[in-house]
Amino acid sequence: MTTPLPDALFARHAPRLERAWQACRERHCWSPFPEMPARYPDSEAAQAASQAALDAMLDQPFTLAQPGITGWLGYPDLPEVSPYTRRPLGIRYPQSDPDALFEAASAAISAGWRQATPQQRVGVLMEIVEQLYVQLFDTVQAVFHTTGQSFNMSYAGSGVNALDRAIEAIAHAWDAMRQVPASATWERQFGTTPIALDKRYRLMPRGVAVCFACASFPTWNAWPSIMASLATGNAVIVKPHPATVLPMALTVRLMRAQLAAAGFDPNLVTLALDTPAAPLGKVLVRHPRAAIVDFTGSARFGQWVERNAHPALCFTETSGCNTVVLESCDDLDAVLRSLATTLCMFSAQMCTSPQNLYVPRQGVRTPAGVVPLDVVAQRLAQAVATLIDSPARAAMILAAIQSDETLALLDTLQAQGAARGKVLLAPAPYPHPHYPQARTATPLMLQLTTAERDLYAQERFGPVSFVIACDDAADALKQATSDVRVAGGLTAFLYSTDAGFIARAEDAYAEAGAQLTINLSGPMPLNFAAAYSDYHVSGLNPAGNASLTDHAFVASRFRIAQARWPRQA
Amino acid sequence: MTTPLPDALFARHAPRLERAWQACRERHCWSPFPEMPARYPDSEAAQAASQAALDAMLDQPFTLAQPGITGWLGYPDLPEVSPYTRRPLGIRYPQSDPDALFEAASAAISAGWRQATPQQRVGVLMEIVEQLYVQLFDTVQAVFHTTGQSFNMSYAGSGVNALDRAIEAIAHAWDAMRQVPASATWERQFGTTPIALDKRYRLMPRGVAVCFACASFPTWNAWPSIMASLATGNAVIVKPHPATVLPMALTVRLMRAQLAAAGFDPNLVTLALDTPAAPLGKVLVRHPRAAIVDFTGSARFGQWVERNAHPALCFTETSGCNTVVLESCDDLDAVLRSLATTLCMFSAQMCTSPQNLYVPRQGVRTPAGVVPLDVVAQRLAQAVATLIDSPARAAMILAAIQSDETLALLDTLQAQGAARGKVLLAPAPYPHPHYPQARTATPLMLQLTTAERDLYAQERFGPVSFVIACDDAADALKQATSDVRVAGGLTAFLYSTDAGFIARAEDAYAEAGAQLTINLSGPMPLNFAAAYSDYHVSGLNPAGNASLTDHAFVASRFRIAQARWPRQA
Repeated sequence: MTTPLPDALFARHAPRLERAWQACRERHCWSPFPEMPARYPDSEAAQAASQAALDAMLDQPFTLAQPGITGWLGYPDLPEVSPYTRRPLGIRYPQSDPDALFEAASAAISAGWRQATPQQRVGVLMEIVEQLYVQLFDTVQAVFHTTGQSFNMSYAGSGVNALDRAIEAIAHAWDAMRQVPASATWERQFGTTPIALDKRYRLMPRGVAVCFACASFPTWNAWPSIMASLATGNAVIVKPHPATVLPMALTVRLMRAQLAAAGFDPNLVTLALDTPAAPLGKVLVRHPRAAIVDFTGSARFGQWVERNAHPALCFTETSGCNTVVLESCDDLDAVLRSLATTLCMFSAQMCTSPQNLYVPRQGVRTPAGVVPLDVVAQRLAQAVATLIDSPARAAMILAAIQSDETLALLDTLQAQGAARGKVLLAPAPYPHPHYPQARTATPLMLQLTTAERDLYAQERFGPVSFVIACDDAADALKQATSDVRVAGGLTAFLYSTDAGFIARAEDAYAEAGAQLTINLSGPMPLNFAAAYSDYHVSGLNPAGNASLTDHAFVASRFRIAQARWPRQA
Repeated sequence: MTTPLPDALFARHAPRLERAWQACRERHCWSPFPEMPARYPDSEAAQAASQAALDAMLDQPFTLAQPGITGWLGYPDLPEVSPYTRRPLGIRYPQSDPDALFEAASAAISAGWRQATPQQRVGVLMEIVEQLYVQLFDTVQAVFHTTGQSFNMSYAGSGVNALDRAIEAIAHAWDAMRQVPASATWERQFGTTPIALDKRYRLMPRGVAVCFACASFPTWNAWPSIMASLATGNAVIVKPHPATVLPMALTVRLMRAQLAAAGFDPNLVTLALDTPAAPLGKVLVRHPRAAIVDFTGSARFGQWVERNAHPALCFTETSGCNTVVLESCDDLDAVLRSLATTLCMFSAQMCTSPQNLYVPRQGVRTPAGVVPLDVVAQRLAQAVATLIDSPARAAMILAAIQSDETLALLDTLQAQGAARGKVLLAPAPYPHPHYPQARTATPLMLQLTTAERDLYAQERFGPVSFVIACDDAADALKQATSDVRVAGGLTAFLYSTDAGFIARAEDAYAEAGAQLTINLSGPMPLNFAAAYSDYHVSGLNPAGNASLTDHAFVASRFRIAQARWPRQA
């Protein structure tokens, strides 16, 4: 008798899984994957193959044999246009009837996925991670040409870092499931009669999950959500943003193939498409068979999802109005260089990018004396300008702008900022060295006072930042944590040499629920979030209700059914 | 320097806590407490003291120095009347303004509870469990004279079993919290520069929890819910049913005293009262500061809570329309005796009591041949009648009826049952040997066909059961699991000698989410739910969305905040 493939997959991947769980428990730095594209095995050939594969897909139908296909969607109904070439990808994807997807997903759960052991499911999912790595440059190309991320970020942030978050979710699900034994024996006396019961515990999935992926960073949130649902026995309908379909279409196709190869129904993972003109998000969330909703996207629709997902479980990450408090430091230049870098990285189109920089009106204390606020603001703007002073550097760090809406927002905010404060840095397109048509913009930086709160106390998505004058350090902290509580905040950054102030800030940000990075400068990107170590999103403020990844992210995705009977003598 | 009291309490109780966690993991039988009142230390004296204490409380104000008291509530605004003596308890309790309770609870969290280590909180809570045991007969008396439970059930089910569920919740919370390390070091290179970050992780509470306790079984659900919230750093406002205030008032008073003795703000636990004429449940659930809602009670209000608790987390247990499938057995008399016992126990005022008994029309297969349906029904009714044929036995097993509404329901259903089927057993008061005024009723048993589904496909709270004729075994299983899916079901009972049918039933009930007991007869009460071993409520059907107790019950009651900074050389 041969070992069934899923068990063999578990055996193959168990060491990596246990190593990952160790990292989750100890929260140190670990990854099975190198973070540099050049260190990928036979990297150049792999990149060339993926480039060719993408070229072959352009303007063609995307092969995805899933149930309930009612038609095909492509440009212009789907606004899937490369931010680099500004050409529509022209790929036409099948659109399926939502009822058919839910029905097929439910059937797929009952047809074997639910009955599989946690080991078997986890084995198949760890193999999917491996195969996503094998085909990683396909994802990288797709992310690059839909989100506008740089190639390196598409590889690192949307590639291997996203795979790490996927493994992290699988490891948490695995640990949560193994807390529940498959069986037990229970013995006691009732009166003088000994009773012995055998008990069996089954992990039961919730049902069909819907996973919304966002336009600018689709894999990093979606992969762990999909894995958390699948590992616990559920099926997943993946709903990509209509401008960023390809990364999720590739994900779905690969997962379906691997599930089928392992002997499971591929309809455990399907793709649900809609268009901006005829959105289907609410239909999916309110579908009677929707049991779980994972949402990454706008604060506005995210709030609707949180309010209306019931009875489905709901896990969200929406906006981040992320803050910096700059009170004092030992090396102001180093701090400003680090802040400039994080303000520029992927044109601040990351949920972790800082936006509101609070500085005491009297200035920032340094070993060389107090540097006045205006000087700090100017030097920060200069640091940004210097960082991107050549198109090659700008391309590497700013990359491209995902959406035309972001350019429009820059225009609006520049005008408002000029009227109500000072424009420290005006945005302008920069010429991308390889893609002359690329949608690009250098950052907009405004200097304001707290009187202009309506302008900045919300997420302004894109390369926009505000240097805001406060009464003093305490006021800066109060303003910043208020932003977090009111508008949501994922990350926060503090520069201070005052141990007492640092302690107060750590308390205040913990209460507000933003992850705080203190006095960091140097080559590490300030807003880098490390799988296995950093808890991404606290769930304590409007930036989202769930964390990647803790036990709360996985433990309620399954339930426990039990049976008991007298032990046979 | 002395060890702070909470740390000392943790040290004292750690062995019991770890022993409890071992039981949770292995799910064997264990309890630190004997289940017989006679085995309580110096039991007679303890019982007499509690009896005297209760007598002294009657018709007096209840001392509870909590914030925001606006007045005092007692009979007749609170319908707190002993089902045994039919006399109002006459105890007057302070009613506090909900805003004041939320404000005081929030302040109490910030004043030290949040900052305490998980060990410290868990230490204090394990001590509270110990003190609840020290004063257990106070709770027993209070439960007896509000719910109408027998003395033995008040002691076992509402006393020591409820303490076990409390410990189980603490152990799960403890285990969930210790998955998160307090700190970590994270090191990697960025480019050629080594970066080392120290990280600190803080467990943050959600905020203020509201715990609704039910009229008939207040401690068994409320104690674990309260413990789950407190252990994870939250405060709890306890909202008892207005007919069953005393058990929760005693709980709140004891917890407040113990919290204060350990150096914490007693306002971590407060009592919120309302009256049937002016209910406050919705105000508490919709309060902007409500962060968690635990609800045990009616399906109707429970559904409202599930729909409206957002953004608060919500854990519910509502109704149970519990089913029996009787297909075949080896010893029909033994089966019918066990079924009769569970139909009578506490007059079926338990969420685990069976209600709908499905029997194939052609009868039940036994070694002596097929016993026709009518004969099975008659013999079951006879078994019930025999079981309670003396007032002493009736008092021990049926105990008293908690509410007048239950008597009214018996009248209505008897009339409807007579018109639409057969009355197998008509209810009647029985004379309680010690309390001649007691509100009592023998069970109503009706025999129907599946045409009368509207009569039985919902929870009928109290001593009501239906013997329902089905086409065959498969139909019985289909009807029974449909009840569970539509009306909710916690427990289910199957009698069959057919291994194939048992396997299909186990599958079907697992999908429906009712805990299945197979072929059990003898002295163990069929619907006994054992802490540490039986998962109570699956969350898979309308009977409730949460389980006592799994990781999902605790893991989302806290969140994780983090800070990170460059390691000092």
